[in-house]
Amino acid sequence: MDIFDRLKSAAKADWTSYVDHAFVRQMAAGTLPQAAFRTYLVQDYLFLIQFARAYALAIYKGRTLSDMRAAKAGLAAILDVEMDLHIRLCGRWGLTPAEIEAAPEHAATIAYTRFVLDCGVSGDLLDLHVALAPCAIGYAEIGRNLTPAGADALGDHPYRDWIGEYAGDAYQEIAMAARRHLDDLAARAMTERRFAELTTLFAKASRLEADFWQMALNDGTA
Amino acid sequence: MDIFDRLKSAAKADWTSYVDHAFVRQMAAGTLPQAAFRTYLVQDYLFLIQFARAYALAIYKGRTLSDMRAAKAGLAAILDVEMDLHIRLCGRWGLTPAEIEAAPEHAATIAYTRFVLDCGVSGDLLDLHVALAPCAIGYAEIGRNLTPAGADALGDHPYRDWIGEYAGDAYQEIAMAARRHLDDLAARAMTERRFAELTTLFAKASRLEADFWQMALNDGTA
Amino acid sequence: MDIFDRLKSAAKADWTSYVDHAFVRQMAAGTLPQAAFRTYLVQDYLFLIQFARAYALAIYKGRTLSDMRAAKAGLAAILDVEMDLHIRLCGRWGLTPAEIEAAPEHAATIAYTRFVLDCGVSGDLLDLHVALAPCAIGYAEIGRNLTPAGADALGDHPYRDWIGEYAGDAYQEIAMAARRHLDDLAARAMTERRFAELTTLFAKASRLEADFWQMALNDGTA
Amino acid sequence: MDIFDRLKSAAKADWTSYVDHAFVRQMAAGTLPQAAFRTYLVQDYLFLIQFARAYALAIYKGRTLSDMRAAKAGLAAILDVEMDLHIRLCGRWGLTPAEIEAAPEHAATIAYTRFVLDCGVSGDLLDLHVALAPCAIGYAEIGRNLTPAGADALGDHPYRDWIGEYAGDAYQEIAMAARRHLDDLAARAMTERRFAELTTLFAKASRLEADFWQMALNDGTA
Repeated sequence: MDIFDRLKSAAKADWTSYVDHAFVRQMAAGTLPQAAFRTYLVQDYLFLIQFARAYALAIYKGRTLSDMRAAKAGLAAILDVEMDLHIRLCGRWGLTPAEIEAAPEHAATIAYTRFVLDCGVSGDLLDLHVALAPCAIGYAEIGRNLTPAGADALGDHPYRDWIGEYAGDAYQEIAMAARRHLDDLAARAMTERRFAELTTLFAKASRLEADFWQMALNDGTA
Repeated sequence: MDIFDRLKSAAKADWTSYVDHAFVRQMAAGTLPQAAFRTYLVQDYLFLIQFARAYALAIYKGRTLSDMRAAKAGLAAILDVEMDLHIRLCGRWGLTPAEIEAAPEHAATIAYTRFVLDCGVSGDLLDLHVALAPCAIGYAEIGRNLTPAGADALGDHPYRDWIGEYAGDAYQEIAMAARRHLDDLAARAMTERRFAELTTLFAKASRLEADFWQMALNDGTA
Repeated sequence: MDIFDRLKSAAKADWTSYVDHAFVRQMAAGTLPQAAFRTYLVQDYLFLIQFARAYALAIYKGRTLSDMRAAKAGLAAILDVEMDLHIRLCGRWGLTPAEIEAAPEHAATIAYTRFVLDCGVSGDLLDLHVALAPCAIGYAEIGRNLTPAGADALGDHPYRDWIGEYAGDAYQEIAMAARRHLDDLAARAMTERRFAELTTLFAKASRLEADFWQMALNDGTA
Repeated sequence: MDIFDRLKSAAKADWTSYVDHAFVRQMAAGTLPQAAFRTYLVQDYLFLIQFARAYALAIYKGRTLSDMRAAKAGLAAILDVEMDLHIRLCGRWGLTPAEIEAAPEHAATIAYTRFVLDCGVSGDLLDLHVALAPCAIGYAEIGRNLTPAGADALGDHPYRDWIGEYAGDAYQEIAMAARRHLDDLAARAMTERRFAELTTLFAKASRLEADFWQMALNDGTA
């Protein structure tokens, strides 16, 4: 069992509240209101800006050139790839880049992103990456859960683009790399006493992810 | 018009949503459900722990011994005075210190506190103190608003202790000092272009304060 | 007069002690002991690792996507270009990458790099970029000073590679961009009271650069 | 063997270069030039300002109220006690507070203090306290080494005040508390792989302390 599985298992209820949230189940069933998805997309774009800052923080906190270069790749994946993907996805849903960037950050967006950044500044790289894990690694798990018969079987599913993105090989590999990196950091710096603290942190981050889905659901069905 | 008045005026709608929130109006009228107040008290205690960290950050960021000593006084006011007051207030409402410290931080608590800390780390002392102002200075304004005939006229108002605390001379003087300090920082480092950015920051912090009241109201009337 | 010229002019003595240091003059004359240059090259490589961290900090502190992307370009210039150049230059001087990375950081290297990082964490982006300026922009000035007749006239000058690098168009353009960026930051956030503080900071950074040359000169002639 | 003894033993050469430095031996023998001591006193005062910032950082990074309160006591010991002692000591050596505060920070002062602050920001509390240990705990060892027959036997030793201060019970107890705290942090967060990294960090900090003595010796005999 790697450190990610240990954390999930130790924070089972909070983890499940996130990966099995009504937003996810409605997305899977194709019944998620479009307004909820649109709210999600916009807030997730604002979310990614803060996540890019978290990867920049990881570069700054790197102790070796190889750590710094790995974090720089993570940063580039967000700034150069994932944000463009959001802009394209948003376009398909009738949202212009200008609309997205002008949107105010929702409290749920602020809560999770600033929590991650604070974990990273006040703790060490392991704290930072544990706080990032529900997002960075969790999205790959959600993508896989939503494609039990493979991404090709999605047909004309209304949320095919999103699901296909995170179920796809490219993102699955990014998540696997993040998982191995977390395991390396834990091998380097994790005592069993820290595991208890990291579980608390991971549980909190998972709850904040669940709150993020809920925010989109509330706004989109208001 | 000092910088605090300029910020309030420029962010009028968000400021009003905070200082004139239903939670505050129901507290004034004495109709606020006790459960809402209890939720507030507990979360505000957890909030103060993070605010103490923000003042520690201000010491760390101080450029002169006198700045550092001023921020240290602010830190001591929280750790040595205000937190004890909360413990006493909580006691009167039947909450033990153990219950308070074991309570999970609500997302609304995380959102405002981590937002302030992030403003402080990523910006300068002026950014930090503008983000702190809705709380540090705003509570004095709320206290005064709730005692138009003076604190002595509160009689057996159910929220007399809380209102009296923030309407009282001691807290009013703390808030006046924070206001003068903010004005000094602005005289030193505020250009008009920064004023626009600081207004955005102040508006966001005010909205997060309003969300904090709302969270207590929701939990307390659930 | 842009902000960089104002800073140089206000901190003239410290600036001159850096750009007109004996190390620079001996390099120009081709009389600099090779051992001094070798010490410099190794320490400058360790220096660049910390400077890459400073640019990562600038990304983290960015307020807009465009600020973040600009700082990311600066980071890439160090990690992907300038460090490779050092490895190549070191190779010509008989130093292997392994030797360079195993070298202990000299106190003069620690002093300037950690000073810059501390300015950046404790202050704002303008503080950070003023602390970086003697290096980022100053090297272009030194390169130009050492090629009054153009880089092509260097002939078989023993330090032709280094001088040509910083006198060359590519680096001159990087420095010009850094200069414009500094001017933008100043237009946004610099009051006249801050100018006095920034001058102190700039003078200190220039002295620490002069100490860095001196360290190489001392070690190389010991 | 507690963690402090393990670190000293693993970084023996660097530790000895610090605690047994010529500055210390000349102070013990009473032959240290007064000018060297005066340079030391002034720079150590500037040093303490940065150390106060390091303790503020420790409060900010605290995970529990009790950690935060302990760090606050460390901060108060510097700002309220040790700095006043320096002002008094300086007064006996003919230095006014104005002279001290106007003195420029020496590169050796910048190197150690900013190194400590950077360890603290980029790492966790254990990194920060390991970087602080050569100063916080080392001074007690030096004080004891210089009083083999007890502080009372110092007679009219020219450096009696300084030696007596650090050999005295009050400082010895502060150092013992710092040592126990370091041991607690290590029990919480130290793996054996981290021990190797912490040893590198501790060795570097010890060398920077040795450089600090050397700077005073150089200036005082110039």
